[in-house]
Amino acid sequence: GLKIVSDDGNFSAELGGRIHFDTYIFDKDLKDPVNTTDFRRARLSMKGKLWKWEYKLERDFASDGTGGLRDVYLATKFFNGKLTIGNFKPSRSINELTSSNEIILMEYAFTSAAGIYDGRGRQQGIGWRTHWSCHTLGLNLFNLRNPGDPRNSGFGAAARLTWAPINDDNSTVHLGVSRSFEKANQASLDIIAEVAYAGRRGPDQLIAISPGGSEYFFGEFGDDEFFLGDSGGRVNITGFELAATYGPLFGQAEYAFGHFTGGLYLSELIFEELYGAPPNFFCDPITGCFIGGQDVHAWYIMGSWAITGQHKPYDAKTGIFKSIKPSPPEGAWEIAARYNTIENRDFRQLRASNFTFGVNYYFNPKVRVMMNITLGDDDFTGDKTNQFAVRLQGAW
Amino acid sequence: GLKIVSDDGNFSAELGGRIHFDTYIFDKDLKDPVNTTDFRRARLSMKGKLWKWEYKLERDFASDGTGGLRDVYLATKFFNGKLTIGNFKPSRSINELTSSNEIILMEYAFTSAAGIYDGRGRQQGIGWRTHWSCHTLGLNLFNLRNPGDPRNSGFGAAARLTWAPINDDNSTVHLGVSRSFEKANQASLDIIAEVAYAGRRGPDQLIAISPGGSEYFFGEFGDDEFFLGDSGGRVNITGFELAATYGPLFGQAEYAFGHFTGGLYLSELIFEELYGAPPNFFCDPITGCFIGGQDVHAWYIMGSWAITGQHKPYDAKTGIFKSIKPSPPEGAWEIAARYNTIENRDFRQLRASNFTFGVNYYFNPKVRVMMNITLGDDDFTGDKTNQFAVRLQGAW
Amino acid sequence: GLKIVSDDGNFSAELGGRIHFDTYIFDKDLKDPVNTTDFRRARLSMKGKLWKWEYKLERDFASDGTGGLRDVYLATKFFNGKLTIGNFKPSRSINELTSSNEIILMEYAFTSAAGIYDGRGRQQGIGWRTHWSCHTLGLNLFNLRNPGDPRNSGFGAAARLTWAPINDDNSTVHLGVSRSFEKANQASLDIIAEVAYAGRRGPDQLIAISPGGSEYFFGEFGDDEFFLGDSGGRVNITGFELAATYGPLFGQAEYAFGHFTGGLYLSELIFEELYGAPPNFFCDPITGCFIGGQDVHAWYIMGSWAITGQHKPYDAKTGIFKSIKPSPPEGAWEIAARYNTIENRDFRQLRASNFTFGVNYYFNPKVRVMMNITLGDDDFTGDKTNQFAVRLQGAW
Repeated sequence: GLKIVSDDGNFSAELGGRIHFDTYIFDKDLKDPVNTTDFRRARLSMKGKLWKWEYKLERDFASDGTGGLRDVYLATKFFNGKLTIGNFKPSRSINELTSSNEIILMEYAFTSAAGIYDGRGRQQGIGWRTHWSCHTLGLNLFNLRNPGDPRNSGFGAAARLTWAPINDDNSTVHLGVSRSFEKANQASLDIIAEVAYAGRRGPDQLIAISPGGSEYFFGEFGDDEFFLGDSGGRVNITGFELAATYGPLFGQAEYAFGHFTGGLYLSELIFEELYGAPPNFFCDPITGCFIGGQDVHAWYIMGSWAITGQHKPYDAKTGIFKSIKPSPPEGAWEIAARYNTIENRDFRQLRASNFTFGVNYYFNPKVRVMMNITLGDDDFTGDKTNQFAVRLQGAW
Repeated sequence: GLKIVSDDGNFSAELGGRIHFDTYIFDKDLKDPVNTTDFRRARLSMKGKLWKWEYKLERDFASDGTGGLRDVYLATKFFNGKLTIGNFKPSRSINELTSSNEIILMEYAFTSAAGIYDGRGRQQGIGWRTHWSCHTLGLNLFNLRNPGDPRNSGFGAAARLTWAPINDDNSTVHLGVSRSFEKANQASLDIIAEVAYAGRRGPDQLIAISPGGSEYFFGEFGDDEFFLGDSGGRVNITGFELAATYGPLFGQAEYAFGHFTGGLYLSELIFEELYGAPPNFFCDPITGCFIGGQDVHAWYIMGSWAITGQHKPYDAKTGIFKSIKPSPPEGAWEIAARYNTIENRDFRQLRASNFTFGVNYYFNPKVRVMMNITLGDDDFTGDKTNQFAVRLQGAW
Repeated sequence: GLKIVSDDGNFSAELGGRIHFDTYIFDKDLKDPVNTTDFRRARLSMKGKLWKWEYKLERDFASDGTGGLRDVYLATKFFNGKLTIGNFKPSRSINELTSSNEIILMEYAFTSAAGIYDGRGRQQGIGWRTHWSCHTLGLNLFNLRNPGDPRNSGFGAAARLTWAPINDDNSTVHLGVSRSFEKANQASLDIIAEVAYAGRRGPDQLIAISPGGSEYFFGEFGDDEFFLGDSGGRVNITGFELAATYGPLFGQAEYAFGHFTGGLYLSELIFEELYGAPPNFFCDPITGCFIGGQDVHAWYIMGSWAITGQHKPYDAKTGIFKSIKPSPPEGAWEIAARYNTIENRDFRQLRASNFTFGVNYYFNPKVRVMMNITLGDDDFTGDKTNQFAVRLQGAW
């Protein structure tokens, strides 16, 4: 940013933005994704200080309508911590909480809003975050909506606790645990877990679904197309985090498991539309395929090595790792890899995974290019689409 | 906000914004609104000077598409006044002309674009405003569209004259009168008066309708659904304003009455869809319910008391009251109440009203929290929905 | 605009914008356009420097969704030139490359994205531009999409070479040639040439069409409505530029011709919907109207005279003429005229033309008002709609 502070220090304003410009090329298998370029992100943001309050308003112009709002909040100090009110990320997965400018591979892992928390990366509500010695704690209460969703009375809560038993200039060990509860209600969308297992704009696989508000049900038993059942689904997810750095090396793993309540009846046609393949279990000729409660497990392990020697710093106030930064005019090279998987244990073979290899070159602390090869694998449909992707990223 | 002025003073630029983050909880009656959170406003604006011209471009990211444009204009001095060209509020109701950052209750009154001028708060056109001694005068000519409406050739005119016979540091008496004329034409939307009588996102009641351009008519006599009749409706509205401050006390009342031309034939089904209840008068079996010319009356009376003693200042250049401002680190408390009603005198019981109680706490001049209880009453449908609402507001 | 540079010069940020507020009044003939006001452009942009990289992010709030993105790119020096990656204008027609703040008539000519390159003014891709002595060279490779189009795997390439044999303070002679190749592919939209021959928001005439990706085809032979044929159309366009200034005089002409591949079968109904008039050639009763390969020719000649004496400067780095600039407090007057025509030589009378007369008054270097009279002529439909248009323009 462009930052200005008033003479008395009571007031400041800072303008920033980011451009992530991607190219996707697929090695197609059963599915037929389209090779293309895409603005993954094209954001402007304004933030600053109003006496004892902070504000931030961020819009992603690569998204349509009110769904393009990102961080939009007012915040202030409260009981040794920071109270934030508005639209922002609840304290859950460490990967989710890492800025998209600082992730080491182009897309987030399946323990985040790119999987088990699909479409729920940011929510409208209230959060409080504090830190002491080598710990951080975040607590959230939220309405189950982001600004692009319909208005609804669903709600949720989340908490995350982290511990960094080792944290010095050369090495960090981080442990974290988070817990999330979400409850759909009047006018809520369904709560789902879904993944693009072969990279952005590649094929999707629905992993789990918990019903939303009653207005999203349709059809009648015996029709070709129906989707009926209970409303007001509940989702409970627990996540564990383990991460460490040592000099230029970085490793991070997460394991998240949760229960999605069900009680849904789908016609076979709708089942196939949603899951991409016909049911591999018995569906009643009248009441269709029954989706009961679902246990979902997701995990990943990833690592990176800064070939040019930079160390990934740890932010002890938030319990998140930051990106390496080169010192201009020198650049920096980084290689990274991740194995990433998610499965629904209540459906046979409803599992998607991928292996991603990445090379990043940092021109300077604000501009980098990323290259990723993603080997996708969907056990449910049998599709094995792969992707080569390149991103040019600038942030200011 | 963030303001920069060039060395020669010919050029300036200033960046601002506002976040209004609301929570709505309903005490439901016949209608079934959804409790929810909502960004009521999430705006960025840029304004400044280009030699003898001013510019302003403001976008509300809480609205979709081109409908999110707010003040977008170029302005310059012209004959002892200010000439403004673009999209902005015509000179009508004092409540409408008050900034949403400075209103004492969370929503506008029924004499504004939240009622008799529904959806016509800002229009594209040309305006001229001047002030002398204790008077202000505003004149407007406009195309009957805001940037979110379809392009059309409807047009309108408005004028507002104010007089402040008393205006000193402790007390002000303000009188005002305004007159508005609107004429639909090719491709115009219908001109309507509609109110959300139980607060934002609560149930709506259509009060009056005057037909737009012919392309919005549909159906045939005798069908289940038809909406036919004359096109090119005209609406004439006259408003009176009375307001005063005395120390920490503030009172304001407006009375607006107008005529909406009619000539519409609606099937009973369409009537009930539009008005929320079946017709309480005779509808012809073939030609349906006839909507002729309609006389609409709207008025409100409201008051506030700054418990912590601040005085609401009066802007003698525009004829509008500004918000109280605390002096940090001190905050300010304010309580407010309003009775607000609108009725269509040509339909029996087509009347909606509400009583609103509010408490505002100002953390500093730019951040406040508002709490409103709204007791709604719709005589036409019999619904008596109430609402509790909270807003956290920051502006910079 | 609002520009800030860091102390070490490695980092800068600048905020700008533009408002073009138009009024259109039609002298209608066979077609029935709507008189209206319109924000032709309402943009904010942020650009700056990140060490050796430049960034720019520009959004037009007069357009919806991701289609509102304009220049969004990162750029850096590369081999004596500038490498640009993102969304921006490929190096083609000089008129297209001129900023909308600096064109002498309100709308672009038919050799630009307002005609032969319809909807393809900006594309996502990579470009490199250099200049030496009195030459400029631009080369581009791009995905056949702008951010508002569907993601697709179509692609294109363009090149432009210019020569300014004379270029001094009082006079310039400019010659240019450009070549463009575009190839539709999976999920591409059709590539078309279309013109609004009676000014913005006036009637359109489709001139040429080359098929896109297969998913945009519909219907079956013998139905009332079908649109079938080959997919993966290719378009090759060559353009010549000639321009000169002498003191306050300016003249510019372009000639662009190209081939649009065809292979399309349209029902007569669809033909008439697309072209605005029934086919004037034989269409087979079963397979409908055949659209084969099409040769398109477009050209214009325009001139202007700055009555108050200003000279239009030439930017030798980009091979484009800039706008005249008055010296406040003095303004400037300019008159301009253009004859503009485009035709498809493979269809009898598929030709549209217009004559435009313009008067511009510059209040200062950033604010001007434009008045245009456009006499439209569509030989295919016989329509001769005319338009009177006024624009108030501010840029900062």
